[in-house]
Amino acid sequence: MNKNSSNIMALAPNTSNKRETVCIFGTGDFGRALGHKMIQSGYSVVYGSRSTQISNLIPKDAEVLGHAEAAQKASIIIIAIQRQHYNFLTPLAEILHGKVLVDISNNLKLNQYPESNAEYLAQLLPGSKVVKAFNTVSAWALQSGTLDASRQVFVCGDDVEAKQMVMNIVRALGLTPLDKGSLLAAQEIENYPLQLFPMWKFPMFLSLGLTIFFFIYCLVLEVIYTYIYEKNDLSFYIAITIPNRVCPVMALILLALVYLPGIFAAIIQLYRGTKYRRFPDWLDRWMLCRKQLGLIALAFASLHVLYTLVSPLRAYVRWRTSTGIISQALNNQTEPLDHTNAWLSDSYLALGVLGYFLFVLLGITSLPSVSNNVNWREFRFVQSKLGYLALIFCTAHTMVYGGKWFLNPLAYKWYLPDIYILSLVIPCAILVVKFVLILPCVDKPLTQIRQGWERNPKYSE
Amino acid sequence: MNKNSSNIMALAPNTSNKRETVCIFGTGDFGRALGHKMIQSGYSVVYGSRSTQISNLIPKDAEVLGHAEAAQKASIIIIAIQRQHYNFLTPLAEILHGKVLVDISNNLKLNQYPESNAEYLAQLLPGSKVVKAFNTVSAWALQSGTLDASRQVFVCGDDVEAKQMVMNIVRALGLTPLDKGSLLAAQEIENYPLQLFPMWKFPMFLSLGLTIFFFIYCLVLEVIYTYIYEKNDLSFYIAITIPNRVCPVMALILLALVYLPGIFAAIIQLYRGTKYRRFPDWLDRWMLCRKQLGLIALAFASLHVLYTLVSPLRAYVRWRTSTGIISQALNNQTEPLDHTNAWLSDSYLALGVLGYFLFVLLGITSLPSVSNNVNWREFRFVQSKLGYLALIFCTAHTMVYGGKWFLNPLAYKWYLPDIYILSLVIPCAILVVKFVLILPCVDKPLTQIRQGWERNPKYSE
Amino acid sequence: MNKNSSNIMALAPNTSNKRETVCIFGTGDFGRALGHKMIQSGYSVVYGSRSTQISNLIPKDAEVLGHAEAAQKASIIIIAIQRQHYNFLTPLAEILHGKVLVDISNNLKLNQYPESNAEYLAQLLPGSKVVKAFNTVSAWALQSGTLDASRQVFVCGDDVEAKQMVMNIVRALGLTPLDKGSLLAAQEIENYPLQLFPMWKFPMFLSLGLTIFFFIYCLVLEVIYTYIYEKNDLSFYIAITIPNRVCPVMALILLALVYLPGIFAAIIQLYRGTKYRRFPDWLDRWMLCRKQLGLIALAFASLHVLYTLVSPLRAYVRWRTSTGIISQALNNQTEPLDHTNAWLSDSYLALGVLGYFLFVLLGITSLPSVSNNVNWREFRFVQSKLGYLALIFCTAHTMVYGGKWFLNPLAYKWYLPDIYILSLVIPCAILVVKFVLILPCVDKPLTQIRQGWERNPKYSE
Repeated sequence: MNKNSSNIMALAPNTSNKRETVCIFGTGDFGRALGHKMIQSGYSVVYGSRSTQISNLIPKDAEVLGHAEAAQKASIIIIAIQRQHYNFLTPLAEILHGKVLVDISNNLKLNQYPESNAEYLAQLLPGSKVVKAFNTVSAWALQSGTLDASRQVFVCGDDVEAKQMVMNIVRALGLTPLDKGSLLAAQEIENYPLQLFPMWKFPMFLSLGLTIFFFIYCLVLEVIYTYIYEKNDLSFYIAITIPNRVCPVMALILLALVYLPGIFAAIIQLYRGTKYRRFPDWLDRWMLCRKQLGLIALAFASLHVLYTLVSPLRAYVRWRTSTGIISQALNNQTEPLDHTNAWLSDSYLALGVLGYFLFVLLGITSLPSVSNNVNWREFRFVQSKLGYLALIFCTAHTMVYGGKWFLNPLAYKWYLPDIYILSLVIPCAILVVKFVLILPCVDKPLTQIRQGWERNPKYSE
Repeated sequence: MNKNSSNIMALAPNTSNKRETVCIFGTGDFGRALGHKMIQSGYSVVYGSRSTQISNLIPKDAEVLGHAEAAQKASIIIIAIQRQHYNFLTPLAEILHGKVLVDISNNLKLNQYPESNAEYLAQLLPGSKVVKAFNTVSAWALQSGTLDASRQVFVCGDDVEAKQMVMNIVRALGLTPLDKGSLLAAQEIENYPLQLFPMWKFPMFLSLGLTIFFFIYCLVLEVIYTYIYEKNDLSFYIAITIPNRVCPVMALILLALVYLPGIFAAIIQLYRGTKYRRFPDWLDRWMLCRKQLGLIALAFASLHVLYTLVSPLRAYVRWRTSTGIISQALNNQTEPLDHTNAWLSDSYLALGVLGYFLFVLLGITSLPSVSNNVNWREFRFVQSKLGYLALIFCTAHTMVYGGKWFLNPLAYKWYLPDIYILSLVIPCAILVVKFVLILPCVDKPLTQIRQGWERNPKYSE
Repeated sequence: MNKNSSNIMALAPNTSNKRETVCIFGTGDFGRALGHKMIQSGYSVVYGSRSTQISNLIPKDAEVLGHAEAAQKASIIIIAIQRQHYNFLTPLAEILHGKVLVDISNNLKLNQYPESNAEYLAQLLPGSKVVKAFNTVSAWALQSGTLDASRQVFVCGDDVEAKQMVMNIVRALGLTPLDKGSLLAAQEIENYPLQLFPMWKFPMFLSLGLTIFFFIYCLVLEVIYTYIYEKNDLSFYIAITIPNRVCPVMALILLALVYLPGIFAAIIQLYRGTKYRRFPDWLDRWMLCRKQLGLIALAFASLHVLYTLVSPLRAYVRWRTSTGIISQALNNQTEPLDHTNAWLSDSYLALGVLGYFLFVLLGITSLPSVSNNVNWREFRFVQSKLGYLALIFCTAHTMVYGGKWFLNPLAYKWYLPDIYILSLVIPCAILVVKFVLILPCVDKPLTQIRQGWERNPKYSE
């Protein structure tokens, strides 16, 4: 059905398109997978191997020779062997002179060696042109053709022409080369595939910790308190009611934590009177994970929206509604509309809708393809102006939600405040300090400092 | 209002920026549109034409000459004529020697000729530097300036400098060149604009077929059965009730079909004891359209969410609610809260919310710009771990939905099971087999096989 | 915790990776920020300054020399001084001969000077290789390392090697270079950071104006009319009820305005009998902001969906429901299900759900990373076919919403129609004209015209 699709073609392309010969040193898993794919894409592949007997795993159309003979047949040699065996290449230095060596190796740990594998290879064989490539591609993905994930192959190297040759191979295999510059970038490229969401770790653990704390807090106040004092089993609150209290609280707190480091930075700069001194390390790291904090906040807000919108479908809510109506009907009375209540309820919902809408807008602009299409001024406008507007709406939403009960002593079970009151502390503090910071008398010196002015120039010496 | 925007400028740029002269062979629609755009971008354009009389359609500032004279005026010649007339260029071989020829042609069918048009041109004129470009751009879009769609122009060619020259023209026209490597890529580039979602065809037809089947199945059970046995006209179920039964069923089945080929692949590899033999063709194709299946499943899930959330607004649901309450009120009774029911209802909704949340997360990570920013390990983590979690949540959601009625014989009309029971078959089977596959005694050999180990090395010979 | 993440590393990289020496002319804010970052990335930095006394603000590891001495130490000189002082560089022409000069300047206004700063620099120093770069990067972002926004650095220049050298520096700083071609692109690059959503201005002002108009219109009809004639204070309608009438109306009108220019264009082309004459300016501009109009329409539609879905949670709606049920109960009556009503309500909701679903699909395909992955034919299919389908669904949704009251004279307060009736005018007109345009007798000549045919060839002369 899909016979003509380019992806299918990539699996079994027209091999009449003969391309140049490429040599692969090493017949390990990745070397074999890469060889398979290259033969499919029209290249001739020669394997260089210590023994030519283990050839049964090797792609059928490939030749297997000794290292020296294999290297002589091609101008590009892919080094599919591990770093610890690189030194066996030194005797071949003469044959490899002037050839393009493609280092595809990965390490088991981040920064395992002082220098990157590719730089080590370049030191061993100074006469060859070393290019780092393919290390981010999985052998399994190459083999199965299911390159759903990133098709980007990071390439770096000091020789421009060698890099071009390797990039052409990358393109021929249906992948997208990304030039990362000189061989100095190799360390970063080698570390890349070892990472598992490094920037997400701290925000993730923070939100997990806070979520567990608030969940237990709510469980105690809502379920256990009611069970002890009112002998009422509300354990089913665990499924929706309590998550729907924790989620908005988490969303508001995390959104506030996105804007808190900016406030700290402004205060530090005002105090120091210069922008040319580094922030403390914790602040630097905090600022670097603001985007992740914001996206987790958005996830909690989305869960809150979903939980809230399904609430009319809950058996418990339907039971509560009908019980209320029936008791009114049995007393032969209809209550008139409480206008204050209507105002509170409507404005609370409207603030929530608008806050969530702005929040989603912020989330969309943080998509890489969208943020690449706006300039710095536009990005600042969206993330700063719209971000603060979202924070204001969400804080107001939470305050109006409290409504009449807000700070009413009767609402305190076991003298503990409800979690929505706790969640208001940081956002309110931020909004107050931010209001002070945009007063002209504070904003003017801050702007000057950010444009490079120094209160006490000698200080920075 | 938008006077200064760069897009408006692109329509009528400062023509004082004089660029080099470009020659266009052929005065057809695309040749003229390209000429217009190039003159707007500051190029001098010379048309090469058999007769210089049909010049009235040609942009005003362009010159029209015979082919030979026109070619001599420029170092880049755009060949805006059809492949079947390429052979008339052979007499001009001497004049075209060393010049850059830009092949912009498209075919009417996929793989219409054995070799691509650009390669054919390069064979005819071996002394010229052929570059493939512009074939993916629409004349209409160039003309109207409304390049809302992809601004990417695929460029390929064997001569690096010639390619650079063409890429500079592409950039000058406000488009983004994308280097696809050597001229061997021309066939793929020529096939590209002829495709209409090739990877989507099979998933689309499959889901259309299944949707129609389930819709009719539901129609029979819900509307026709009720009409026959209860004389009750529920034809309005067609608008929301039945779609809202079909959508979740489709979402669950398609999500399961995303993970089924992975299960098959694992079983095949375990059975064969090697990963070096190709999967059967149907499995390869299935694996290649998993992303599309998943996205269609997400679309059905989203429709299900929307249909479910609007249900409290339905006149029918409001009538049913009020009828229930009134009958209770007229009987002077209030039912107590059914705790089992509250638990079932809440956990069913909570599972659905969480499942949908994870599903949307999967959808977001499959956006090209997001998946390009994660490495292979991260992508695997999200798509495999979170994907299975979503499948577990959605399956549990469906099971709890059935609740007390699940497998109760009274729920079977005409001895036919409800469709949600049918939809559970594949996901449950997958979850059971997957559970077996992650048992250490099965997982260990599988991991070894995937790392290149072979149970019976001679087998693969 | 994040010790090993590449972003953290970028803040304090291994300075053992010594790179070449770069010279920076000018010790202003951006010059210092760039110098800091380059030293962090392993470059040696030499500042060229008139006086070497103001060195206290300059990064510690940088040298400060006179202009001539500094320039001699490096082959790349970054000109971090303002355009009005460029002429002081002319005496240095001999020293700067053959060197790469990087122009990083920005202007205060769009198109402030007749030629771009970079071209002016190239004219002043014809012997140097001028490259435009870095002007879109903020000093503050470089300093703080918080490059959340675009990491793209636009680079242009006439010398390919010089451009490569600058692009390598860009990559080394952790940014992504984007080659924009020759130095002629400098003006566009210099204008880029001054823009604040230029394409969004007109759609934004238009929708703001229309929103205010419709809001006041509704306020008069819903709140003030009721207050005057029924002495009923419904001021809380301002929070949700009225926004939820304005949003769908705005969404429908703006969606229609996306397709209106296409209709006009077709009529103009049919009338003129050619596509080779420019459209009037207003139509060109309108066509260029269709995407923005569509996205704002989607925003309004999303707000409408959220407002509608929260309505069962509103105190007012719950009060109205229970009042209705109680009055029925007190009269000892239960109304039977009104099948017409059930049909109307269900189909109105179903049309809305499907329309919104298609609308969101259109929005997703307009994400840059998605639209870059579809070809022209696919983009046209989605935006044209699915777009019109969405318009049809949304128009039908609005019509069925009116239902029995549609065009009923009793529904007109103060002889003014409800706004949903106003909103139907443009979409209905578009759908009627579009239906005429796809009739074969009209479609055939239009298709011919769009393929380049002219009814009256001499006309276009």
